[in-house]
Amino acid sequence: MTVYKMTVQYDGTRYHGFQHQPNLQTIQGTIEHALVKMTKGKKVNVVGSGRTDAGVHALGQVISFAYPGSLAATSMLKALNSLMPRDILFIESNIAAPDFNARFDALSKIYEYRVALGRYTNPFLRLYTGHHPYAIDIKKMQMALQDVQGTHNFASFEASGGVIRNKVRTIYQAQLDTSNYPQEIKFIFHGDGFLYNMVRIMVATLLEIGSNRRPVHDFLRLYEVQDRQQARLTAPASGLYLKKVFYPQK
Amino acid sequence: MTVYKMTVQYDGTRYHGFQHQPNLQTIQGTIEHALVKMTKGKKVNVVGSGRTDAGVHALGQVISFAYPGSLAATSMLKALNSLMPRDILFIESNIAAPDFNARFDALSKIYEYRVALGRYTNPFLRLYTGHHPYAIDIKKMQMALQDVQGTHNFASFEASGGVIRNKVRTIYQAQLDTSNYPQEIKFIFHGDGFLYNMVRIMVATLLEIGSNRRPVHDFLRLYEVQDRQQARLTAPASGLYLKKVFYPQK
Repeated sequence: MTVYKMTVQYDGTRYHGFQHQPNLQTIQGTIEHALVKMTKGKKVNVVGSGRTDAGVHALGQVISFAYPGSLAATSMLKALNSLMPRDILFIESNIAAPDFNARFDALSKIYEYRVALGRYTNPFLRLYTGHHPYAIDIKKMQMALQDVQGTHNFASFEASGGVIRNKVRTIYQAQLDTSNYPQEIKFIFHGDGFLYNMVRIMVATLLEIGSNRRPVHDFLRLYEVQDRQQARLTAPASGLYLKKVFYPQK
Repeated sequence: MTVYKMTVQYDGTRYHGFQHQPNLQTIQGTIEHALVKMTKGKKVNVVGSGRTDAGVHALGQVISFAYPGSLAATSMLKALNSLMPRDILFIESNIAAPDFNARFDALSKIYEYRVALGRYTNPFLRLYTGHHPYAIDIKKMQMALQDVQGTHNFASFEASGGVIRNKVRTIYQAQLDTSNYPQEIKFIFHGDGFLYNMVRIMVATLLEIGSNRRPVHDFLRLYEVQDRQQARLTAPASGLYLKKVFYPQK
């Protein structure tokens, strides 16, 4: 048995999310299907650093699995890429410690959210951005992002379906990339963990603040009330990217 | 009756090309379907500046049609966009002379072809670029592009299925954009007309020259032999964009 830690990119458009679901195309299912071919029938269980939802993309998702054999790390990369469809690409491969687990060992993650601006959806970005057709105030959103940084109870920003009791998370950095403004803006969040749909609900709230539909410091109120109903909207999956997952140094 | 000249962008991935085909999704069919809704049942014939094939994109396709009514140009733009799927977007609208025809009045066109480099296909570019995983020599391709400029018989660069007798075309400019090299290169062709699949066959030939599979000046030989078999390859539709169509000044 050899344990592999691998970094994978995917265009999530065609998939029903990362996690295996019976009779549905998923990232985990596609990778496990390839591994079964390589082991000639032995099931290999793939662990992801976290789930991504249907339509959500990854630039640096990390997975781990125990493989019954001992391929070199680069051979595993080539073998898996040769079995992947064109919308999944392994970009890094390492042999990990025997007890490595991509989910439980993850220290923190970076998510990015791309928002296309302007009245109409760009035909070439529709699957790769969210879309906000209203005027926005960059400064107001930057002020609100200051409130996102730090340790808070994010219960108001969790979609129903979340199963974790503790709603407190720490966001180390919450930033806005305006280098493509006014065509596009990008939110970047680095945190120790994220609740179900948390980034997409935060982005929708930030855009409401930017368009004067909420007070600038409404995040502070939402931390207090701990009520999903008050955060209302969820930005679409198409704009969300799992950018990077951090692990302890060996 | 009012004649409209409209510029339209589309992601060609989901379509069986521009031209109407029975029981298949096409750009022309989608636009005509919307116009029939607007006229409450009267068929409106849409003319494109030229066909684009299945999977080929447009940044500036031009169409014309005679509409039984007289909407303002901006109202026509809004009305059509409200009826388009998210992968088709009208970006310009004008009322044209009564005899304007987007196909027959076109003076010249610019096509662009994006080629992603590197060993593997980028999952996010697979539908929007061609892919060339081999080393290339930019200088050799730039020398070959000098041979493309000018007036030549392009019979070697026409796929079977072309119906036009005269194979002589004039290419005003043939350039290589290397601003994203080594991730990507982009070919740009401005010509008075293009034969069936001509850009895609030229790009495949240019990439062969860049990877030392053909002599640098092989275009000159191919103009002489006028034999499609000798140009061999066709670059995939996904990298091709109809960028701009030129018409006489009013």
